[in-house]
Amino acid sequence: MSFELHPQLEADTLPLGDLLLSRVRLMNDARFPWLVLVPRRPDLREFIDLPAAERSILMEEIAAVSLAMREVTEAEKLNVAALGNRVPQLHVHVISRFATDLAWPAPVWGAGSAQAYTPDAQAHLAQALHAKLAFI
Amino acid sequence: MSFELHPQLEADTLPLGDLLLSRVRLMNDARFPWLVLVPRRPDLREFIDLPAAERSILMEEIAAVSLAMREVTEAEKLNVAALGNRVPQLHVHVISRFATDLAWPAPVWGAGSAQAYTPDAQAHLAQALHAKLAFI
Repeated sequence: MSFELHPQLEADTLPLGDLLLSRVRLMNDARFPWLVLVPRRPDLREFIDLPAAERSILMEEIAAVSLAMREVTEAEKLNVAALGNRVPQLHVHVISRFATDLAWPAPVWGAGSAQAYTPDAQAHLAQALHAKLAFI
Repeated sequence: MSFELHPQLEADTLPLGDLLLSRVRLMNDARFPWLVLVPRRPDLREFIDLPAAERSILMEEIAAVSLAMREVTEAEKLNVAALGNRVPQLHVHVISRFATDLAWPAPVWGAGSAQAYTPDAQAHLAQALHAKLAFI
């Protein structure tokens, strides 16, 4: 079995790039700067489905993405989560939060409807993140 | 500066034990089996405030707690998250989720009010987790 991005993640997100282990996608919701890391391994649901060595790599990719997001978006707080209640494929949310954002201080899940990026806004954010992250 | 558990976490949770890096507390909410890991270092807000070596340890403690929770509670899904929008001290939620729980498939945060454990139920869960986790 080879890795394939879950169709719901494919539908909800825009391409950004691949790190050593994880595919990084941009949630297509201009209300919140929000990336999703998806380890490119088949049949993962939980962190504990990865071997320990790859969990460490995933943690370092979460850290790299967190640093890039904080620098690029000037986030006041980062939210990092692996939930998977609706989409079973293991994916890790890294979300820039602000005391002024429309969900604060609640989590972003379930807060109204996504607002798609304009092509310009998407390109601008993608370019800034590409300058900070070592995509392969 | 030495580590002190944030007073809000102290108020919301019950003691369980310490792993090498993290204090593990039981959220005092019998509706959801829910642990919180708090790395015992001062002044942490984000994963990226920890050095990389300690991030790896934290990931392995998240994994150990996840395995223990899945075995003890027969969780159908685990939710793992570091949010910190309300309580700034870095803490990682590890929550056992079930398709029959009252928040499913939404996240647990904001779902009504916590229901405190009875002493018997708390002791039973704590004992089962102590049998699975290498508390120091």
